[in-house]
Amino acid sequence: MIILVDLDDVLADFDGGFYAEWKRKYPDKYIVPPDKRTKFYLKEEMPSEYGSLITEIIISKGFIKSLPEIPNAKEAIYRMRELKHEVFICTSPFRNYKYCVSEKYEWVEEHLGKEWIERLILTSDKTLISGNYLIDDKPEITGCAKPNWEHILFDRSYNRYITNKKRLTWDNWDKVINVTG
Amino acid sequence: MIILVDLDDVLADFDGGFYAEWKRKYPDKYIVPPDKRTKFYLKEEMPSEYGSLITEIIISKGFIKSLPEIPNAKEAIYRMRELKHEVFICTSPFRNYKYCVSEKYEWVEEHLGKEWIERLILTSDKTLISGNYLIDDKPEITGCAKPNWEHILFDRSYNRYITNKKRLTWDNWDKVINVTG
Repeated sequence: MIILVDLDDVLADFDGGFYAEWKRKYPDKYIVPPDKRTKFYLKEEMPSEYGSLITEIIISKGFIKSLPEIPNAKEAIYRMRELKHEVFICTSPFRNYKYCVSEKYEWVEEHLGKEWIERLILTSDKTLISGNYLIDDKPEITGCAKPNWEHILFDRSYNRYITNKKRLTWDNWDKVINVTG
Repeated sequence: MIILVDLDDVLADFDGGFYAEWKRKYPDKYIVPPDKRTKFYLKEEMPSEYGSLITEIIISKGFIKSLPEIPNAKEAIYRMRELKHEVFICTSPFRNYKYCVSEKYEWVEEHLGKEWIERLILTSDKTLISGNYLIDDKPEITGCAKPNWEHILFDRSYNRYITNKKRLTWDNWDKVINVTG
């Protein structure tokens, strides 16, 4: 099987990194905490005057590279490889790609290992990538092709309104998708 | 239709950039000229003692960003878009990605325009990307999936031994692939 796995908020803790940096920079500016989020895009969740402050953080040098790991994520994708599945990390860069693209490669090398560099796919349109499954936290994934993968939601508060797709966490993934054949 | 187009030596003149830099740095070291090449990888064409000198050039800061355009390439992919085809640039980064990945994005933005950033796909395995055609100079394209595209060779001296695939240049592309439906 070919299993595609999103990077941000699935393997790398984008939200965790963002909230830590926000609290450090703007301790007096309240924002909705991660577990109360109802929208996929941070900016849609926050007061509009915070928009440029949010962007400034996430496109800044070092932000992507310094993201923590989502617990048990690495172990899960290593296990998929042990089970002889093909696993690719499938991620969409920001339009402001200055630091983001090379730091995604750096993050993968540092946290997952050098051999995973060749398993990293950068694309704005994930419907073009072939696979049996795409594990992604984004509620709806659109693009110009009819994808051949089944979208499995990586469980997050902001995608719980979607009820017609399987969802998983890194604690139960091997029960949600049948990886042993 | 979805048309995938390789970047190096199809849109960007990788060989031209390399030869110019080689002659500047090593004017006394003979290498096989572009039109006499018979192998896809530069290193396989040159004396083995040049290997590290070749690598040093192609992974250096600014090399990818400064590549010239292949003549008529831009006009061809713009024309494909006018004809309402989906066009994506499909390129494999070096394992040494330090400058290469962000410079590929910079090259595309500078030479093709900002909107093409979202049409850039970085992947080591092109068989995973869906499309009707893949226009690529590499003689054989392998990976872990059975691709749904037809590989059209971008004509270069080193792929002329392949006789069972269509081949094109940016002067005859619209006669080789049927883009008007």
